[in-house]
Amino acid sequence: MSYFDAASSAPLHPLARQALLASLDEGWADPARLYREGRRARMLLDAAREAAAEAVGCRTDELVFTSSGTRAVHTGIAGALAGRHRIGRHLIVSAVEHSSVLHAADTHEAGGGSVTRIEVDRWGRVTPASYADALRPDTALACLQSANHEVGTEQPVADVAAMCREAGVPLLVDAAQSLGWGPIEGDWSLLAASAHKWGGPSGVGLLVVRKGVRFAPPGPVDERESGRAPGFENLPAIVAAAASLRAVRAEAAQEAVRLRELTERIRVRVAQSVPDVEVVGDPERRLPGIVTFSCLYVDGETLLHELDREGFSVSSGSSCTSSTLTPSHVLKAMGVLSEGNVRVSLPTGTTREEVERFLEVLPGVVAGVREKLGAPDLATTVQQDVLVVDALGRRCPIPVIELAKVIGGVPVGGTVRVLSDDEAARLDIPAWCEMRGQEYLGEEPADQGFAYLVRRVS
Amino acid sequence: MSYFDAASSAPLHPLARQALLASLDEGWADPARLYREGRRARMLLDAAREAAAEAVGCRTDELVFTSSGTRAVHTGIAGALAGRHRIGRHLIVSAVEHSSVLHAADTHEAGGGSVTRIEVDRWGRVTPASYADALRPDTALACLQSANHEVGTEQPVADVAAMCREAGVPLLVDAAQSLGWGPIEGDWSLLAASAHKWGGPSGVGLLVVRKGVRFAPPGPVDERESGRAPGFENLPAIVAAAASLRAVRAEAAQEAVRLRELTERIRVRVAQSVPDVEVVGDPERRLPGIVTFSCLYVDGETLLHELDREGFSVSSGSSCTSSTLTPSHVLKAMGVLSEGNVRVSLPTGTTREEVERFLEVLPGVVAGVREKLGAPDLATTVQQDVLVVDALGRRCPIPVIELAKVIGGVPVGGTVRVLSDDEAARLDIPAWCEMRGQEYLGEEPADQGFAYLVRRVS
Repeated sequence: MSYFDAASSAPLHPLARQALLASLDEGWADPARLYREGRRARMLLDAAREAAAEAVGCRTDELVFTSSGTRAVHTGIAGALAGRHRIGRHLIVSAVEHSSVLHAADTHEAGGGSVTRIEVDRWGRVTPASYADALRPDTALACLQSANHEVGTEQPVADVAAMCREAGVPLLVDAAQSLGWGPIEGDWSLLAASAHKWGGPSGVGLLVVRKGVRFAPPGPVDERESGRAPGFENLPAIVAAAASLRAVRAEAAQEAVRLRELTERIRVRVAQSVPDVEVVGDPERRLPGIVTFSCLYVDGETLLHELDREGFSVSSGSSCTSSTLTPSHVLKAMGVLSEGNVRVSLPTGTTREEVERFLEVLPGVVAGVREKLGAPDLATTVQQDVLVVDALGRRCPIPVIELAKVIGGVPVGGTVRVLSDDEAARLDIPAWCEMRGQEYLGEEPADQGFAYLVRRVS
Repeated sequence: MSYFDAASSAPLHPLARQALLASLDEGWADPARLYREGRRARMLLDAAREAAAEAVGCRTDELVFTSSGTRAVHTGIAGALAGRHRIGRHLIVSAVEHSSVLHAADTHEAGGGSVTRIEVDRWGRVTPASYADALRPDTALACLQSANHEVGTEQPVADVAAMCREAGVPLLVDAAQSLGWGPIEGDWSLLAASAHKWGGPSGVGLLVVRKGVRFAPPGPVDERESGRAPGFENLPAIVAAAASLRAVRAEAAQEAVRLRELTERIRVRVAQSVPDVEVVGDPERRLPGIVTFSCLYVDGETLLHELDREGFSVSSGSSCTSSTLTPSHVLKAMGVLSEGNVRVSLPTGTTREEVERFLEVLPGVVAGVREKLGAPDLATTVQQDVLVVDALGRRCPIPVIELAKVIGGVPVGGTVRVLSDDEAARLDIPAWCEMRGQEYLGEEPADQGFAYLVRRVS
């Protein structure tokens, strides 16, 4: 039984558990009250805020506890935009932010604001120059994650922060994936994070707003948490969050080295032992515990299911595993293969043995899924020297499997036209071409869905 | 050591603690994931939702878990108003709602909506007729608490709900103070509640939206909790909240009888043993555990401090104990005395001995505070047969103390004019007149603050 999905939620750190238990008896009263139970609760809250602020590297009066990382992001973005609405209504985000940031951007846009979404390279990384280019006189806020949640790529936050600072624009950093590993470098203005990502309990997020940043919290007035996080404080969980942040930080340097070795081993071994695989994300500038790869001709949901049966809990950005039937926006923005996608994110304490067992099991599981898939022979026709594959109504990875199957049947220089109404095909067919050295000619609307055109080169 | 402030936050119920501990190990993973840890978390979440829905008396798909009662209220009001914005932008609330409701109403008003605030009688109770009168063709939503958090008065929710239903207007019930005692009767449309009020952990609220109620959640899109409560679910706490709601309900009938006897005893004994006291709130239609009284010539903060020293944790609606220096909006709306205000709210399990000790200690504590106050002799002057007391710059309860001191110095039929810039005087001087059988003539602006005019009748 190996849980390899720490980037979704980390198991509770033993110290978080201990702090939670201790403060259940001491921390249930209202910290705003003056009697002894209230004073005790206030002391716990103050101490937790101090510990968290020290870990972040900010003043205690800059940090509030929210009910989740998502809530910290939503409040941070809405508050900064409202605080600077006189300057303008332009928002900059990267295309690979967490959905909480992108949904907040969508809401801003729906309300009449404008949004620039910064593209990333094939490693999932933005360039500071692209942020500099996007800054405008009416830019109210820019957002950038410290590291990507799906592929682990670290972003150049300090450089982007410096550029924003020069332009007088606050930068909000979503530090959810990296705060447990260390403070966020650079001159950022706002920061959001989530305790259950670093081994703290659920129900606690952090929102930091640097002194001097104009900020108008959204929603009705509330006296708690400087008016930035309404509702009764989730106190025992806040205490546990702060205690575990301190604890994981104490272990971070050593554990980072260990996990980096393990994920490096996965990167190398997966590429060697699984045919037709693409390891994605920045090979160097990446989080210690995350490694992501995509397997051609594999149905992501079946793969996850089979790995679960083998005792491995992992996550996927494949379309087939999500209710929306669209592949992960991160893989999409990177322009990499999404089919058969697997994200392995190791919790602290993962052993080498667990990783070895995963590496032993994986090739067979992938082969089994490929075999089981029993790809159907779809109708093909030849129209004006173009081989047409009708994959309409078939989901990922069928369109790519069929393409791979028929490409050998056309002469070098010949063209295959894949008809597909599956959103994943738009990403996976070009990605397949790049992996296979074939030429992707582009897409065009068809009667139903789209036609994807591929020329055989070799 | 007696904690008598359950209406602020109840101590954690033993079953809540037990459920929390059990689910810490089982419930930390993402319930949206398909692997075993995720499925286990999903099962816990589903079971908690079923238990909570059963206690509320609603369908499971009508109930979501929010991060607090305040958040449930804010989301419930904003969502119902947005869902019905085509009908109109008129909102009805009672004047004695919890601040979360009133602040949401203020926000609605600031955004261009209109708000009717329903007055209450001297017991703090609304009449169904006043809601019926307030309903308009453009009314989008009405709100009413099930019972008042400061004085314990129960509201005629079922009757108001019936009137709203007839007018096609949804009624949102803030059930924070009463849900632990039993389900909310009547045909209401939305309901909000808070787990830490019934002995559950902090960090969990309930929002129920009946099928058929138009509802558009505020803020950015999020997939969790039917899109009504963004952010990672606070799972172990949710499990504990549901378990403790079930547990307190099982004990509710018996415990209600017991606590009602104890609070009745406090009502009777305080009135007998403390001079110049007013017991406030409905004597019959009230919550089992809450009793509230105000003591003339007493500084609320000092009183709370002295009671804390004696081992009793209670709360107060006096202005002197709040940072805003305005008395509780509830006492204000009721038109009752706010000075020396004490709310006793007994947690389940409170013993008769604790209550007896409180009743033994209280008269001496009140007398001590009155003595200690050592009210200053303020400058008085006679202008055109009116005795003028200059209490400018003096806080509650000084203006009333001075009024009481000088009233005997004017002949029957004569007038005292109290100059005061303390917000509490507006409430406490008329309340004193009512208690003392003197005639309150009204207020008028003075050079600084206001002049309050009292005619000596007896």
